Amino acid sequence: MKTHKVKFLPHDEEIVVPDGENLIRAAMEAGVHVNASCGGEGLCGKCRVLIESGRVEGGTSPLLDREDFDRGYRLACRSLVKSDLLVRIPPDSEIDAGVLDRYTVPRKAAPVQQMDFDELKSKGLFIPPVEKKYIELPQPSVMDNLADSSRVIGFLKLRYGEHRLVFWLAVLRRLPDALRAGDFKVTVTLARPVFKGRKSHIINVEPGDTTDRNFALAVDIGTTTVYGQLINLNTGEILAEYGDFNAQISYGEDVISRIMFAEKPGGLDKLHKALARTINGIIRTLIKKSHIGRDEISTITLAGNTTMSQILIKANPRYIRRAPYVPVTTLYPPIRAIDLDLHLAPHANALLYPSVSSFVGGDIVAGVMGSGIYRSDQLSLYIDIGTNAEIVIGNRDWLACAACSAGPAFEGGGITSGMRAAEGAIEDFSVHPKTLEPMNITIGNVRPRGICGSGLINIVACMFEEGIIDNLGKFNRDLKSDRIRERDGECEYVLARKEVTQGERDIVITEADIDNLIRAKGAIYSGCQTLLDEVGLSITDLDRIILAGGFGSHVDIEKAMTIGLLPEIDPDKVTYIGNGSLLGARMSSLTNRIRKDVVEVLKKITNFELSETPSYMNNYVAALFLPHTNLDLFPRLKARLKAANAAADHLAGC
Amino acid sequence: MKTHKVKFLPHDEEIVVPDGENLIRAAMEAGVHVNASCGGEGLCGKCRVLIESGRVEGGTSPLLDREDFDRGYRLACRSLVKSDLLVRIPPDSEIDAGVLDRYTVPRKAAPVQQMDFDELKSKGLFIPPVEKKYIELPQPSVMDNLADSSRVIGFLKLRYGEHRLVFWLAVLRRLPDALRAGDFKVTVTLARPVFKGRKSHIINVEPGDTTDRNFALAVDIGTTTVYGQLINLNTGEILAEYGDFNAQISYGEDVISRIMFAEKPGGLDKLHKALARTINGIIRTLIKKSHIGRDEISTITLAGNTTMSQILIKANPRYIRRAPYVPVTTLYPPIRAIDLDLHLAPHANALLYPSVSSFVGGDIVAGVMGSGIYRSDQLSLYIDIGTNAEIVIGNRDWLACAACSAGPAFEGGGITSGMRAAEGAIEDFSVHPKTLEPMNITIGNVRPRGICGSGLINIVACMFEEGIIDNLGKFNRDLKSDRIRERDGECEYVLARKEVTQGERDIVITEADIDNLIRAKGAIYSGCQTLLDEVGLSITDLDRIILAGGFGSHVDIEKAMTIGLLPEIDPDKVTYIGNGSLLGARMSSLTNRIRKDVVEVLKKITNFELSETPSYMNNYVAALFLPHTNLDLFPRLKARLKAANAAADHLAGC
Repeated sequence: MKTHKVKFLPHDEEIVVPDGENLIRAAMEAGVHVNASCGGEGLCGKCRVLIESGRVEGGTSPLLDREDFDRGYRLACRSLVKSDLLVRIPPDSEIDAGVLDRYTVPRKAAPVQQMDFDELKSKGLFIPPVEKKYIELPQPSVMDNLADSSRVIGFLKLRYGEHRLVFWLAVLRRLPDALRAGDFKVTVTLARPVFKGRKSHIINVEPGDTTDRNFALAVDIGTTTVYGQLINLNTGEILAEYGDFNAQISYGEDVISRIMFAEKPGGLDKLHKALARTINGIIRTLIKKSHIGRDEISTITLAGNTTMSQILIKANPRYIRRAPYVPVTTLYPPIRAIDLDLHLAPHANALLYPSVSSFVGGDIVAGVMGSGIYRSDQLSLYIDIGTNAEIVIGNRDWLACAACSAGPAFEGGGITSGMRAAEGAIEDFSVHPKTLEPMNITIGNVRPRGICGSGLINIVACMFEEGIIDNLGKFNRDLKSDRIRERDGECEYVLARKEVTQGERDIVITEADIDNLIRAKGAIYSGCQTLLDEVGLSITDLDRIILAGGFGSHVDIEKAMTIGLLPEIDPDKVTYIGNGSLLGARMSSLTNRIRKDVVEVLKKITNFELSETPSYMNNYVAALFLPHTNLDLFPRLKARLKAANAAADHLAGC
Repeated sequence: MKTHKVKFLPHDEEIVVPDGENLIRAAMEAGVHVNASCGGEGLCGKCRVLIESGRVEGGTSPLLDREDFDRGYRLACRSLVKSDLLVRIPPDSEIDAGVLDRYTVPRKAAPVQQMDFDELKSKGLFIPPVEKKYIELPQPSVMDNLADSSRVIGFLKLRYGEHRLVFWLAVLRRLPDALRAGDFKVTVTLARPVFKGRKSHIINVEPGDTTDRNFALAVDIGTTTVYGQLINLNTGEILAEYGDFNAQISYGEDVISRIMFAEKPGGLDKLHKALARTINGIIRTLIKKSHIGRDEISTITLAGNTTMSQILIKANPRYIRRAPYVPVTTLYPPIRAIDLDLHLAPHANALLYPSVSSFVGGDIVAGVMGSGIYRSDQLSLYIDIGTNAEIVIGNRDWLACAACSAGPAFEGGGITSGMRAAEGAIEDFSVHPKTLEPMNITIGNVRPRGICGSGLINIVACMFEEGIIDNLGKFNRDLKSDRIRERDGECEYVLARKEVTQGERDIVITEADIDNLIRAKGAIYSGCQTLLDEVGLSITDLDRIILAGGFGSHVDIEKAMTIGLLPEIDPDKVTYIGNGSLLGARMSSLTNRIRKDVVEVLKKITNFELSETPSYMNNYVAALFLPHTNLDLFPRLKARLKAANAAADHLAGC
């Protein structure tokens, strides 16, 4: 078989592939990440790479400029390797691992709500799902030669009043040797039922006293990134945390393209394996970082959106994306970690966070648990903004949820110069009111590469307040500046000319980009409004807003209110929760009380399919303005605009 | 690597092995069975093979005659392959598949107790552990887009009052496609709990109505042979049955040698794999014979002795054979068939029959269930005779059990001309009172090859009643016959001179052989007596005897009583149950009532370690006579002997 060497720059990774191999597949194999938001169909044009030497077949698409083509650029997903290659991944086609750290630490100084172990304990919420007991058993003799399992169970019954104990097969296999290695002094690991009266499972028996070694994993499975924490179950302490890109990213950037890939022959299996590989890599790192043994981990709690969860259990996600949007399940049965192809001991059990519906998944349920809104009297809005924005509104008595299809604008998708929140992304912006010259602040303070989602909000909010764009998002054609230019009847503003960027194109924001943003924010705002309408409340009744997720951690709350993405409330009542999914997963791994509550929350929560909710379309149309048709919903902004107008009138009058 | 071809005759099987490979290992690989009762240590001398051409290294042992050695015989287990070989397996080193059929059909015409499906039904004992329900679900719509699992569970709850339903992971994986393939008309398979109020598991969902296709497997795992039955769960009918040798046989003939093998590095894994291979082969044949799909089998019930069960679940059996003889468990948790490496669908569950102790295993518990002695008012003796004889005595109120180490005599082991019950085995015998010439009847009516266990009993009983041997098993030295000869002070009787046999040696019975038999039968008789002593009863209180197992099916009851193997009771009260283990396994697979009763039986049964029971040794010593020290325990025999003596006196007086 003919093969070729492909070398990727600037990574300096080399791989040998068969003749005719797809170039994006080769990149994946080499461990080089290339954006491919459309799942490799040549539709998004994000996977531009520069062929520095060698020959590929194909690689063109209407999305690739003639100019780029002539300079040697190709779309990796449409290119077949036909010779040895030297391929350079331009910065804008590459995913930057810098994003990972950003996701963990909120940028803004708003209060972060975190529930800690001591708080759990003090509230009587600490009921560990996995417990270790050290026991010293009587030695067997010919007059007392009970089976090993009966000896252990009988002792636990007699001494600790334990009932309904069941051995796992994996433990039985090791039991005779473990008992004798410990001279019948052993530590038994019990997995506790969530509900009283159910069985406790004996999931491990170890020689000697190992009660101080009891660990759990909590994992948030995001579409883009996966985060894990290793937790000491005796102290609640996080011993290590680590995040990595979801290796599925090579098969498509968002859940829909993943589902489409899963529908191809063998696709589901590939996606499952990629995810398992990612999680296993994280497990490996966490174990290494915290110097514990792999077998000392007895439980792993995973939270992810419905598609990620279904891919993890290898259930076809096909019907998630098709009306009437049916997931396979909401509650997952108890699963052994090894049955999910996770590299843990055979006795380790895996708990998957339940989901509400196809688009409100386990990550959101985990966030609800982590944020505690289901235990609060306050009317809270919990919101996780991404390609889909999931919204939960409610309090201790009721909960309603919905998913809004916001589109990829907040992640830089569908935006001319859009990019993920990584080094070089413009994240803050202001404009000189007279010269209209910009001030761009980038992540990492380097030359700009593009605009990230939070940057986009800041730019549009600023331009709106400065009157550069109107409440429809259209540029004021009267303004004179070489920053503003027109192409095919559409205006755009040049934030950075290509000479000052890391790339080879001007960084611009166009009216189409602004329109994308308005539709995205309109979908979310009207989603919140619709949920409240349905329960007879109004957006002004909200007591607090909890922002979850990577994007939520970095959004400027005031600016988000200015464009009408968030309802306008006192900014002090807005909280960043960070990775709510990971927080909820960790809490569930620490206490059965939360696991029990989850079941109650699931019963309590009402899912709305917004597309089927009549009021949604009206609310949506009303929200397609900056900030909204009804400016009275944004009284503080209204006051500011009024003051600005007065000042402008005053100046004009001078 | 140097390799050699080894061809086995008369099988005509050829295999390529590396230089220096052990010859018995090569035979196993080639699928050629060679007796190796000692597990390949060169200690039993049973694996004599004739090297017709080529060269082996080693292969000698004190157990191989000089004469045999000169003729080219070697012990396979001690021979290393050093060139291409032509190896002939002499009939006496080979296991004959003919034995398999014999095990299934009792030879004698005593009544066979079998409980059938109609009887179960009529007694209200039919509570199927696996049930299929055909349901027509409402189609999902956007206004009713419940998760697939919730749709199924909700419908079963509403329509059938089903509660506590849990999906298996394997079913969830297939659920979305199964529902839609059947247009939401599907058949759900429910695995029922043994105890009320516990969970029912949804183990399968199939498109369409498949309620008439619901099958189970019952398997008896013997040390030597494994039998399986395929059962229609709707009718109780046995659709197919099949038996095969336990492939572990190549690693040792009895449980002790298997345990010793399991203690070697990698040994347990090899034994487990050999057993799984055997069961999988049986499953394959049963499926083929009955024209059903592998996935239509939803449950498999397995019964085996404690060692076989532990090897099946891959739990080290090391402590079974060492004082104080502790098994890993008595009750096995629910197990998925695939976790035992059985080739069944992922949803198929495996039920292992619980055991009482290290030497009273699941096969015996299954026999107790199958025979129904635990439900009877009568005082029954249930006995399964093999290398170990397991005894259960009791009635509906109490049960006591013990295992006696009878030694291999009943399976032809340790007997000069002993062999298994296969073609050519002398199974019936009489002797001319004057000439002392024998009349041998062999299985299959062919030239004799040796003496099987039941033949041995018949020979000794006959010789004893004819006065050829005395009640100590010693030959009457006064008798003159060239059939009786003395070697090293020990007498032996020649049943067949080598010219008339299939082999190359005279077939004889020696005083040492008879002594072996007396010790074997003494162990069993005194075991029964000891159990009865311990509960304050006597052997004469027994109402009936149930003989189980291959050997039990072929023993001549009268003769067994003559030598004192069985207590003397009315022969009409002796029943053959055949393969009690298989019967019990089948009954458990048909009804949860039996599975529930098993738990009660386990609580009720008392295990006696005979070696630790003081009265046992006295009873044993008293039983080392033909039939027993106390002839009054055998009144009918006593009367016969008296009559014979009177006749002899009369003749002498003539």
